[in-house]
Amino acid sequence: MLSVAEARSRIIDGLRPTGLEQVMLDAALGRVAARPLEARLSNPPADISAMDGYAVRAGDTVPGSVLAVVGTAPAGHPFTGRVDPGSCVRLFTGSLLPDGADTVLIQENATRDGDRVTVNEAVAVGRHIRRMGQDFLVGDTVVPAGRKLGARDIGVSAAANRPWITCHRRPVIAVLATGDEIALPGEPIPPGGIANSNTPMLAAAIRAAGAEPLVLPPARDSIAAIAGSLDGLRCDMLVTIGGASVGDYDLVQAGLAERGFAIDFWKIAMRPGKPLMHGTVGGTPVLGLPGNPVSALVCAVLFLLPAIGRLSGDSAAQPEIETARLGAALPANDQRADHLRASISRDDAGDLLVVPFPRQDSGMLRRLALSEALVLRAPHAAAAAAGDRVDIIRLDRLGL
Amino acid sequence: MLSVAEARSRIIDGLRPTGLEQVMLDAALGRVAARPLEARLSNPPADISAMDGYAVRAGDTVPGSVLAVVGTAPAGHPFTGRVDPGSCVRLFTGSLLPDGADTVLIQENATRDGDRVTVNEAVAVGRHIRRMGQDFLVGDTVVPAGRKLGARDIGVSAAANRPWITCHRRPVIAVLATGDEIALPGEPIPPGGIANSNTPMLAAAIRAAGAEPLVLPPARDSIAAIAGSLDGLRCDMLVTIGGASVGDYDLVQAGLAERGFAIDFWKIAMRPGKPLMHGTVGGTPVLGLPGNPVSALVCAVLFLLPAIGRLSGDSAAQPEIETARLGAALPANDQRADHLRASISRDDAGDLLVVPFPRQDSGMLRRLALSEALVLRAPHAAAAAAGDRVDIIRLDRLGL
Repeated sequence: MLSVAEARSRIIDGLRPTGLEQVMLDAALGRVAARPLEARLSNPPADISAMDGYAVRAGDTVPGSVLAVVGTAPAGHPFTGRVDPGSCVRLFTGSLLPDGADTVLIQENATRDGDRVTVNEAVAVGRHIRRMGQDFLVGDTVVPAGRKLGARDIGVSAAANRPWITCHRRPVIAVLATGDEIALPGEPIPPGGIANSNTPMLAAAIRAAGAEPLVLPPARDSIAAIAGSLDGLRCDMLVTIGGASVGDYDLVQAGLAERGFAIDFWKIAMRPGKPLMHGTVGGTPVLGLPGNPVSALVCAVLFLLPAIGRLSGDSAAQPEIETARLGAALPANDQRADHLRASISRDDAGDLLVVPFPRQDSGMLRRLALSEALVLRAPHAAAAAAGDRVDIIRLDRLGL
Repeated sequence: MLSVAEARSRIIDGLRPTGLEQVMLDAALGRVAARPLEARLSNPPADISAMDGYAVRAGDTVPGSVLAVVGTAPAGHPFTGRVDPGSCVRLFTGSLLPDGADTVLIQENATRDGDRVTVNEAVAVGRHIRRMGQDFLVGDTVVPAGRKLGARDIGVSAAANRPWITCHRRPVIAVLATGDEIALPGEPIPPGGIANSNTPMLAAAIRAAGAEPLVLPPARDSIAAIAGSLDGLRCDMLVTIGGASVGDYDLVQAGLAERGFAIDFWKIAMRPGKPLMHGTVGGTPVLGLPGNPVSALVCAVLFLLPAIGRLSGDSAAQPEIETARLGAALPANDQRADHLRASISRDDAGDLLVVPFPRQDSGMLRRLALSEALVLRAPHAAAAAAGDRVDIIRLDRLGL
């Protein structure tokens, strides 16, 4: 069976980023920049004052000397004259430094009396000045391609005077749950049935990852129903849920085969989630998740979210592996990579402490919802003692 | 001057969570549950099989013995008869355990031949069975009040058959930028002017925190313009930007005073961001952020996001403080709490390593956008050596 890393590579390597979409600044949060964004303004656009005070010539700042205030230049209202020897101009944080001035005397070191200012402290050339372009110059890249845009990226794009950002289109991820036993929450539940938790959960995870979920009506357990779900479908990836195991009623592969499904793999050496399926149908990549909700979510973290990252053009889309100290011993692992649901806290030194729940039944969805991390256990990992450092993926982030 | 912690407490303590809104599951991502959500279904709803195999009586599982297959019970199609001694029922993961059976013989340990199954291994009572309600029972709380809903919470709500969730209304946060020098990105920029980065940046941060930004037209530097911005305004908090410093042109306080502003405080012992203002006008809380975008963003992380958390009813809304090892020495700090922009990486042991940028000019917005963390330096903190552990806030999360 494939390892987790091999399976992820095979899924990711077949994907290409979506096409372009022009997005305005106020809709760009969480979108991925498709091209480097170049500044249309320098920041600052000119030499400006970093403080409230007076634009002066450094040579004039002999303590006790008196300067004539020849003008005032609030931010947005530059002084158009010149600061000649013996004169100064009142300015504020963000004011343009007028011609002739070469430094700023801060108001705390000046005594104002009408149109005259007494210097209380000498100032070197260039003090309290933010130089033109010290943050960036016209033409500099302020946001690199492949970056998922946060509030700060939107701020720097705005400062660069770019109201539009060229992004990758949000990938559309279709979700097809299968099974006669499932009912949509709030609808009548058949005898022996359950409320469908996978579809709303995965749709939310898809949305949290920056993609657009396309929730298909659940398919009954029939080849025709599953095949029919593909008719008229247009998406960047199809995620099926359930029906990919070895039971007689696992019909997803047979249903997809009716429409020309080409399978890549359908089992990996991991727990929970062994029956992960991958292939393509009509050029659309297909990821088949296990029907068990705990397994489905863990597989989504490991495989679907990185796939969405690749489709979105996000250059940093891998599950972030952190480390933490074990709060309890763990036995040796078997041949399948394990993903233990765990709580986290911090020890006295501020170090992350992770405690796997004693019972790891993959039927425990509420337990999963209250877990803060997955502890990663490699195949054949040796027994670990309390205090050992282990790899974790935090679940209490990324909208999961 | 107030400390950061005192200022935060004074801001937060005056806030009450917003009222209620009924939200459907597929719109609930990132919303905050206002009430404990109780299950309408047990999970599992009955004793079910955790594997593909046969429902049997444990006493019948003598290796070599042969059982009659009297029925098939795929998930969603319960067997309505009874498993008598010497018989068995074919079942699959998720199938209800039929009456009479007390364990599951997995198919790997059975040899099927027509309507007969040979037992290859003895099975104890209760194997491979998920007991009714082992995850949760009808009436159990599956999502606590005050929880910000992630994909897993939505999954468990769905499993509990709750299509609606009672949430707090998204707080509406009005953003008022002030200053004659600012122009909205893409609009004509006056002489000596700059593109307004604060408004789009803070609107995105507000959205990322789960609130609704209400972007007011920027106000010119006049008391009347600032006062007029309040007319007809309805919001849960007003955030002003700029104009709260000590310069002659800092008119926000004067403008708000025209409408009855009651100030609480307007300076705190921190860097960047000393001129933080707090008060109320007409019952609406007001947070005044510095006009410098770097200062504004740092103050938003420390004060605005926790305020949004409180308004949203989020029980966990504090900036998460983590720890990391310093990659470079730091000098002793002065009397103001400092927030150094820094990059992070991981050392060979997987420990977080944080390196503050040598230049911490608060005019460096692009530098802020590329920072991954703020290193927190307490007032009068002693010099720190490379390798020392320091507190940090990660900026590369939470949509920042």
